[in-house]
Amino acid sequence: MSDDWPTVPLTELETFIANALKAVGFLNSGAEQTAKLMADADLHGIDTHGVFRLPGYIERIQAGGMNVDPEIKIIREAPATALIDGDNGMGHLVVARATEIAIEKAKQTGIGWVGMRNSNHAGPAMLYSRMPLAHDMIGIYGAVGSANHMPPWGGTELLLSTNPISIAVPASRHRDIVLDMATTVSSYGKVKTAAQRGEQMPEGWMVDRQGKPLTDPQRSHEGLLLPIGGAKGYGLALMLGLLAGTLNGAAMGRDVIDFSKDFVTTTNTGQFICALAIANFAEIDQFGAQVDAIIDAMKASPTLPGVEEIRLPGERSAKLRGSRLKSGIPVHPALLEGLAEMAVDLTISPLL
Amino acid sequence: MSDDWPTVPLTELETFIANALKAVGFLNSGAEQTAKLMADADLHGIDTHGVFRLPGYIERIQAGGMNVDPEIKIIREAPATALIDGDNGMGHLVVARATEIAIEKAKQTGIGWVGMRNSNHAGPAMLYSRMPLAHDMIGIYGAVGSANHMPPWGGTELLLSTNPISIAVPASRHRDIVLDMATTVSSYGKVKTAAQRGEQMPEGWMVDRQGKPLTDPQRSHEGLLLPIGGAKGYGLALMLGLLAGTLNGAAMGRDVIDFSKDFVTTTNTGQFICALAIANFAEIDQFGAQVDAIIDAMKASPTLPGVEEIRLPGERSAKLRGSRLKSGIPVHPALLEGLAEMAVDLTISPLL
Repeated sequence: MSDDWPTVPLTELETFIANALKAVGFLNSGAEQTAKLMADADLHGIDTHGVFRLPGYIERIQAGGMNVDPEIKIIREAPATALIDGDNGMGHLVVARATEIAIEKAKQTGIGWVGMRNSNHAGPAMLYSRMPLAHDMIGIYGAVGSANHMPPWGGTELLLSTNPISIAVPASRHRDIVLDMATTVSSYGKVKTAAQRGEQMPEGWMVDRQGKPLTDPQRSHEGLLLPIGGAKGYGLALMLGLLAGTLNGAAMGRDVIDFSKDFVTTTNTGQFICALAIANFAEIDQFGAQVDAIIDAMKASPTLPGVEEIRLPGERSAKLRGSRLKSGIPVHPALLEGLAEMAVDLTISPLL
Repeated sequence: MSDDWPTVPLTELETFIANALKAVGFLNSGAEQTAKLMADADLHGIDTHGVFRLPGYIERIQAGGMNVDPEIKIIREAPATALIDGDNGMGHLVVARATEIAIEKAKQTGIGWVGMRNSNHAGPAMLYSRMPLAHDMIGIYGAVGSANHMPPWGGTELLLSTNPISIAVPASRHRDIVLDMATTVSSYGKVKTAAQRGEQMPEGWMVDRQGKPLTDPQRSHEGLLLPIGGAKGYGLALMLGLLAGTLNGAAMGRDVIDFSKDFVTTTNTGQFICALAIANFAEIDQFGAQVDAIIDAMKASPTLPGVEEIRLPGERSAKLRGSRLKSGIPVHPALLEGLAEMAVDLTISPLL
């Protein structure tokens, strides 16, 4: 597996991504900020949402489907909320700016909730839910996914995406707890990975339009992703879509375009970020100690047969971050090849 | 089924509940407000969370485990947030008061987030998430459940409850969309109902401490409720517990007592309610029309074989409300008998 892949140090990955973005017209600051966020996804082991996405982003930018120099601005505002228009800019830049605003508002009023329209794919949700942690705040992030792969419960029309939610809560001695989950059993990225590797999918990921289990990922275009918990996951995906999309005047339902097939049409992606200041509820130190105690209790639970240890949300990512900071970030050989071709096209230095 | 049960008009149910609460020391206003909320749960078809709970509440009050005349007060406050101490009062009164405060704050700042400690079981989550709707606001509610029935994912110690989340979004022509879901595949109430009826549970609701499917609800005390989506539902239950419990200084994890077994110990139940003002993101009318369009699209989806129609979250409850307003609320004969005995004990008029 990834043990055999070539590895690249974090800073080199950041430089490569930034150079690629500059080559297609990004300003230095925007390229570097985006590169840091994208590489941070890889650093945390979220390989489907980091540099893996770069060729797609570049293709969209070259096709004119994304604005390389967006004017990200507040279009509605209240003391604790804002609505941001991302001007069809890179999602990473739009959400990072929105999160800064949410944190500033939370400093003033205790909470900040910022909605976004005219944004784009922004990588993994956990990049943003974690940002308030450094300010002794809890982060909550939701997004409309960048393609519809799920029908309403009992239906067959693809009207919903994997709409993710991420919640980050700071601990003290322990690693912060960071949940980042799609509302579908599997992400579509994992389906595509199974197809690339010639593997079958387990039952429960997808059904066909007769409702029968679909386990061949080559046939995924005929299939429907299943929500977690049946009607519950459908309901959660729908509500996240209303909060992240509809409320912000962003795409939701039939107007969501498939980001990985249509590189030209403005996606009008919607997201929201909420920062909640802990100090208005508890003493920061005491809260951290309480979260530590919860983590200790979970980790100390006896396990089911065959289970080695109890994990907390975000624990695996945080551990990978540690090892990848030391040993570099493994990059799949096929991806490396694609990035090398892209580097030639953009006349930038290759990654390795 | 419930078609054969005796029915009672809403107002009579409200009067009966209020009389019972007054008989054990509630002030008139608190008794009437609680009764309206409890009966509203029955009206919406949430039969496990309405008058069904009354004997348990009365038992707790008589045992001294709940404060009949609580001083519900704000103990920390920022412009958009508050922390409420419920003074071990009835959960319905505590959460209703917190929701009023959240709505007031949202009018001022765009959003209000209110956490609660020293609260109690408050009935179904949807009672509270819907309250902001009348103010053109979205409601989001989360709670720590009143007994632990779920281990961390891969574990066997019961450290988590079914921690529910409810989100309510107003529509215009259509019924409002109201999600109210436990983070477990099944609620513990449904397990108990299956046991009462001598039915088996489907696989996937519970496992035993070896991880094997447990389908006999008589053995539920040996079992573990399963989260929706495996590790995802575990993560969601944990995060809701941190937000509704730990952040507010309320019980979470090992300090959650079983509300239906221990009637004396203060539960220190935690909840949160968030009200988000739509007008700071969209024109109210346009937003309603957009939500209507989403509902129309979902309802128009072709269905899987055997599925009659696509439903939106809260649709079934809203329909039941309509029919029960007309024809009365069906009450299970065994419950009616229990309520009759309780009425004798409290020297109040029986329900029927």
